[in-house]
Amino acid sequence: MLETLDFLEIAQSYRAIFLDSYGVVKNHRGLIPGGSETIKALREAGKTIRILTNDASRSPEQQAARFEKQGLTGLAPAEIITSGMMAKLFLEQKVKGGKVAYLGTENAAHYILAANLNSIAVSKIDLADCSDITAMVFLDDEGFDWNRDINTTVNLLRKRNIPAIVANSDKLYPVAKNDVSIATGGIAKLVESILNRKFIHFGKPDTQMFNYAFEDINTQGNFTREDILMVGDTLHTDILGGNKFGVRTVLVLSGNTRAENADIQIRSTGIIPDYVCDSIVG
Amino acid sequence: MLETLDFLEIAQSYRAIFLDSYGVVKNHRGLIPGGSETIKALREAGKTIRILTNDASRSPEQQAARFEKQGLTGLAPAEIITSGMMAKLFLEQKVKGGKVAYLGTENAAHYILAANLNSIAVSKIDLADCSDITAMVFLDDEGFDWNRDINTTVNLLRKRNIPAIVANSDKLYPVAKNDVSIATGGIAKLVESILNRKFIHFGKPDTQMFNYAFEDINTQGNFTREDILMVGDTLHTDILGGNKFGVRTVLVLSGNTRAENADIQIRSTGIIPDYVCDSIVG
Amino acid sequence: MLETLDFLEIAQSYRAIFLDSYGVVKNHRGLIPGGSETIKALREAGKTIRILTNDASRSPEQQAARFEKQGLTGLAPAEIITSGMMAKLFLEQKVKGGKVAYLGTENAAHYILAANLNSIAVSKIDLADCSDITAMVFLDDEGFDWNRDINTTVNLLRKRNIPAIVANSDKLYPVAKNDVSIATGGIAKLVESILNRKFIHFGKPDTQMFNYAFEDINTQGNFTREDILMVGDTLHTDILGGNKFGVRTVLVLSGNTRAENADIQIRSTGIIPDYVCDSIVG
Amino acid sequence: MLETLDFLEIAQSYRAIFLDSYGVVKNHRGLIPGGSETIKALREAGKTIRILTNDASRSPEQQAARFEKQGLTGLAPAEIITSGMMAKLFLEQKVKGGKVAYLGTENAAHYILAANLNSIAVSKIDLADCSDITAMVFLDDEGFDWNRDINTTVNLLRKRNIPAIVANSDKLYPVAKNDVSIATGGIAKLVESILNRKFIHFGKPDTQMFNYAFEDINTQGNFTREDILMVGDTLHTDILGGNKFGVRTVLVLSGNTRAENADIQIRSTGIIPDYVCDSIVG
Repeated sequence: MLETLDFLEIAQSYRAIFLDSYGVVKNHRGLIPGGSETIKALREAGKTIRILTNDASRSPEQQAARFEKQGLTGLAPAEIITSGMMAKLFLEQKVKGGKVAYLGTENAAHYILAANLNSIAVSKIDLADCSDITAMVFLDDEGFDWNRDINTTVNLLRKRNIPAIVANSDKLYPVAKNDVSIATGGIAKLVESILNRKFIHFGKPDTQMFNYAFEDINTQGNFTREDILMVGDTLHTDILGGNKFGVRTVLVLSGNTRAENADIQIRSTGIIPDYVCDSIVG
Repeated sequence: MLETLDFLEIAQSYRAIFLDSYGVVKNHRGLIPGGSETIKALREAGKTIRILTNDASRSPEQQAARFEKQGLTGLAPAEIITSGMMAKLFLEQKVKGGKVAYLGTENAAHYILAANLNSIAVSKIDLADCSDITAMVFLDDEGFDWNRDINTTVNLLRKRNIPAIVANSDKLYPVAKNDVSIATGGIAKLVESILNRKFIHFGKPDTQMFNYAFEDINTQGNFTREDILMVGDTLHTDILGGNKFGVRTVLVLSGNTRAENADIQIRSTGIIPDYVCDSIVG
Repeated sequence: MLETLDFLEIAQSYRAIFLDSYGVVKNHRGLIPGGSETIKALREAGKTIRILTNDASRSPEQQAARFEKQGLTGLAPAEIITSGMMAKLFLEQKVKGGKVAYLGTENAAHYILAANLNSIAVSKIDLADCSDITAMVFLDDEGFDWNRDINTTVNLLRKRNIPAIVANSDKLYPVAKNDVSIATGGIAKLVESILNRKFIHFGKPDTQMFNYAFEDINTQGNFTREDILMVGDTLHTDILGGNKFGVRTVLVLSGNTRAENADIQIRSTGIIPDYVCDSIVG
Repeated sequence: MLETLDFLEIAQSYRAIFLDSYGVVKNHRGLIPGGSETIKALREAGKTIRILTNDASRSPEQQAARFEKQGLTGLAPAEIITSGMMAKLFLEQKVKGGKVAYLGTENAAHYILAANLNSIAVSKIDLADCSDITAMVFLDDEGFDWNRDINTTVNLLRKRNIPAIVANSDKLYPVAKNDVSIATGGIAKLVESILNRKFIHFGKPDTQMFNYAFEDINTQGNFTREDILMVGDTLHTDILGGNKFGVRTVLVLSGNTRAENADIQIRSTGIIPDYVCDSIVG
């Protein structure tokens, strides 16, 4: 299996291409070289495109603007589906009034505001007067002081019996060829472990985002699962989610999964992509 | 919130009713008293019904036959959606040839056969000659000798680098008013802990079964999420899954969640049903 | 480091030798070939000997009798120190009256009786009438029906707010060259996970047994830690415990740690034996 | 049991008193009111005193100086036994040369220097040139940038196959009447979870510190376990450790264990102190 295949050749057989963002279209240095051309080629071939990303740090609009700035033009916000959007739908449906506390940048708080709720950064919380806080959301690993604000979060959740929501369950993300950084899900896990409690998690491998994208593209076209190809760099999120949703999956080796480990990881986890490519370029 | 409401009155506002099986329609003694009448009333009111159950121990046909025997007539196999069916779809797509080992009764092996694969009970495995085994599935907590066969499973997964699939992630099920029994997911967790490995899990709260049911009823009708009511007795499977899928949810107090704890559990988990009823009868 | 050394040559420099039992002196087939001669040679050289074993399934007397039967003569019960004895001291000090429930063979119940307490096998418990049960002890993985009795244990600990004690924390033990069996600690972990509770654990790497042995040999001699050599086959119990207690440690490759993995395991865990030998014979 | 007793009256029956520091002798505001007088009374009654603390953030000398400054005079450094000292003994015995990386203040690095090793703060590490780092020690939750330095620690341990040592396993400590702060052990647990690896932990409830104190006081006197009383505010460290070591234990309600929860916590954990007192004053 681990002879890798040409991505564009595989993509020919599908009408819609779902792509993870980080590790697939971009990495810590920006767009992957040639990525822009691949997306353009997919467009020209008439493929419907959606980005499915476990990223709750920015709105689809901001993510689209960032792609644009990095050189990938023409990706519409409506083509970007984030785990933050799933969390937003949940907040909208289940949290009534009050203030929603969050860890993350101000940008990330977008998802709370979009749910028509008031937001408050954890750094702004007065633990002596927090009875109006109605939910806690883990949105990003940046934008706050870890020591001070993770501790405040622990104390908030000891005082207030409220839902805690993890808008991105990833534990790690790559920040350089060989280095990683603890992601939102890792921070949430620390708090869960300290409190001995399980929070509500969003993002791949849950099939919710796939379903959202599937229904979305079906408002315009008439797609079945056979028409769809999911492309990702992480077995236990992108590929497992795609496999569970019942679409074909491509593992690319340009991110979390290294070429030298791919075979053993695939066999030992049983998370088996339909195809393996070096990247969306190769 | 915890004044409970009348179930049939709530159900009036919806066109399709999704129900968990154990703790909702039946319990350890059989059908819940009056359950048959409720289902009949839903039928007469023209509601579309689906059972969504984390049960991989029997095929939909067998489960329908069992309901019939217990006094609930007219439930078609096609109306019963099981976590075993989700596991079957996965096996079908991802396991090619060989034999699939399983823990469970012979009835449960149905899901392997339905995926057009050969099955072998763990008790029949010869560890000295197991190179043809291509996957391991946890189907049921019954039908095998726990001591001998869980140990064989551990050794099989040490020898063979194959996918391990948990067709029902529930850790516990009630067997009497105050007693519980370790379920398939609990046994799988023991093996995961011994091997320090994560398996592939199926069943609620994953939204996959909801989606399957949703697409299924839309082959005949034209349903939106607003038309659907999910009824369950367990917050972190039935209600969380329904909430994530975006349908309205009813918590019934006839199974895993006790009336005296419901309020505190709802508030502390943040898994908030839209309605609470004593049962589908009350 | 991984050139292995001659055990008897190393032992020369020490006045007291502490040995793990399983994987060191014996294995699943009986005494290791030549083991009896090594023990005899240590005796003749005037070494003080203690067996330190995470085994709560038999009394020191029974273990001595078993060694005798297997061909290792002259090992006195007083030279065998078991994790069961540590659990017994705890029960003696902390449990007053009532009955102590246990999982294990009748032999294992010895440790409860030795603490002057009444014992009751879990299989004999009537959950409807269990108010006289004052503690639960996990003694062995044998001597009971796993399905029935582990479930009874779960329900007992849901009904009765009592201490649960794990007299042997090992999760696995080898039963053949390539096969393992789930041990008492693995069963306890399943119950802990189901109940989301932590029990009280005994055995290496806790330094308690080392201290017991140290004080014991000092009733007759005048030993310092420098005089003592600990011999074991498992890094995270025997070697970590010995290192923490401050005595020199030998890893033997005749049990849990395979020659081909020893180096990488030592470096990655940081549990560094002072010496490595093929076995107490080689 | 939960009528509390007078501490000094209990202490009369013992010749040596072991006390935890935080939550017993001091709290987040300084010495507990009357604490100094209690220690003085114990001295005048001829009791031998040792402080046993899971604190690796300062040397015994610095801790003694701090007590002095807070108003508790005459506590000698030699009377203070810390989990940091246990980690130091381990480093001394097992790490040869190179540099030992640490998380904590410069004060905490004392324990590395005392083991005759070179230390380097994680903040000073160049991941591109870290081949001379031979161990990693978690000493304190303060003195570093959590975001930057915990991430550096994760990457260091991915690059270097070296022992990781947790010199204080406590997950939480109280910082105000109702607030807590994540402690060294909590941070270590985050890194363990990210790397899926277990580190080497020091501190109570391991009986190692009790044994160290026991041997230490026996260099001057002639003490048996019956002569010793352990005083602590935390069931699963102070009281469990004391119980396992076989000395009598007092739970005080001036720290981690609240009066209103003490009874239920004692019964459910099975960690049973011999006495309960409001504090060492009351």
